[in-house]
Amino acid sequence: MHTGTVYLVGAGPGDPELLTVKARKLLDSADAVLHDRLADDRIVASCSDTAEIVSVGKRPGPDGERTTQEEIHHLLVRKAREGKDVVRLKGGDPTVFGRGGEEAEHLAAAGIDFEIVPGITSAVAGPGVAGIPVTHRDHASCVTVLTGHEDPTKPESALDWDALAATVQAGGTLVILMGVGRLPDNVAALRAGGVSEDTPVAMVERATRESEFTVTGTLGTIVERRDEVGIEPPAVTVVGDVVNVRDKVVEYLQGAPSVGFAPAPETAVSDRGVE
Amino acid sequence: MHTGTVYLVGAGPGDPELLTVKARKLLDSADAVLHDRLADDRIVASCSDTAEIVSVGKRPGPDGERTTQEEIHHLLVRKAREGKDVVRLKGGDPTVFGRGGEEAEHLAAAGIDFEIVPGITSAVAGPGVAGIPVTHRDHASCVTVLTGHEDPTKPESALDWDALAATVQAGGTLVILMGVGRLPDNVAALRAGGVSEDTPVAMVERATRESEFTVTGTLGTIVERRDEVGIEPPAVTVVGDVVNVRDKVVEYLQGAPSVGFAPAPETAVSDRGVE
Repeated sequence: MHTGTVYLVGAGPGDPELLTVKARKLLDSADAVLHDRLADDRIVASCSDTAEIVSVGKRPGPDGERTTQEEIHHLLVRKAREGKDVVRLKGGDPTVFGRGGEEAEHLAAAGIDFEIVPGITSAVAGPGVAGIPVTHRDHASCVTVLTGHEDPTKPESALDWDALAATVQAGGTLVILMGVGRLPDNVAALRAGGVSEDTPVAMVERATRESEFTVTGTLGTIVERRDEVGIEPPAVTVVGDVVNVRDKVVEYLQGAPSVGFAPAPETAVSDRGVE
Repeated sequence: MHTGTVYLVGAGPGDPELLTVKARKLLDSADAVLHDRLADDRIVASCSDTAEIVSVGKRPGPDGERTTQEEIHHLLVRKAREGKDVVRLKGGDPTVFGRGGEEAEHLAAAGIDFEIVPGITSAVAGPGVAGIPVTHRDHASCVTVLTGHEDPTKPESALDWDALAATVQAGGTLVILMGVGRLPDNVAALRAGGVSEDTPVAMVERATRESEFTVTGTLGTIVERRDEVGIEPPAVTVVGDVVNVRDKVVEYLQGAPSVGFAPAPETAVSDRGVE
């Protein structure tokens, strides 16, 4: 029996037009699509009518638990062995905190052909569409992308926060994914590493989606700003002088659904309530 | 008179199918397209028949000098003021070492509406299509992207190589763009910062293009490997344990035009000569 191919495909940050042409073609022709929670609903809804669509982000029902990674591996192999060409659709890029590497290893171990189809990571596009270039000739010579959901004080934290702080002090940009909840811990870790409280910080919520929303502040104020405005996941946090570029360009920046500065605290809550 | 809008558009790493749907639409409808050298020829050739196409990467002729950044700023503003919708097409993503931030600042200062349209950066896609995920749950908790063309020993170098070395030692991945020429200097800077010579390193030349070629080694061997195989720009260099994932998966990895391991030195030269 013919064995199918598994395509590990990045769905990009949200806007369906930020899919690649290749991803679009694969979604139009796939026999099965396994998607996670971060892949935009409109993209999932646009798949081939004949494709089997499987959500592996959450089981149905109010207490829906996540499908385990082992179950996902098992499903990918099973569908391919049924002869199906499978798109494994992931938010952003499959290899940027997307577990694409693990799935590739599992597929190779099972003898299944696979391909990695890059997608646009929100680590770059989230700041970008909000007018914040992650690098800049005058401000930022490197950019580091990490996830913020680990407790930085735990000994098993794999991140060297002092080294991260040093790159910021040398003018580098930090982009923190999944960093809404632990923002206070991450800010504290950077300040302990010597980063000035005046360092600009922005958070971009739901980047490239209709409800995109950006708030700016500094390392000293961003936690308060997050709470005033009520930033919720998914959001991208950017730390570094590049955040100031937004102030210079936002008046003429098109395309972002809500490009204004975050409103003052009094209006912020009611504005957010309207959404 | 109507003033046009300038779209700062990422062309992705090379493969025309890795353009976004949005970039494709903009190229089909633009009045003018200003492109740099890294935007793939096939993409430039696919623009609207009626669009004015301007190469701002290099002037024609054997000694073609680069168009200066100031000239590019001037051209963007002039075309928009002629009422044209302009696509400024850049290799990769416009904000990852693409000077998109500078162009945005200049456009805003001139009162020209603009939009940032993210593209796939070769910093992520280059390793990805070669079977190297830039992050991995077991190996890499963060990824830092930098350019390697600065002399790391110069005092004005904006990079803190000791901090970069520390992130690698903590398990982070480094991705070096434009790092073919100064590879020996960058390797020396990392080793001086304490990174082990056994740390895996890969170079992916012309990622996602037909002639894509990958060579792997370690921090101790990669300069020799580069020379044996004759790696030339543009290439992406990856430093970190994630490089080992390639070994586990390459047998089943599809899509990359030349996914084999770099050949042994004796055959390497003749293989490369055939291209």
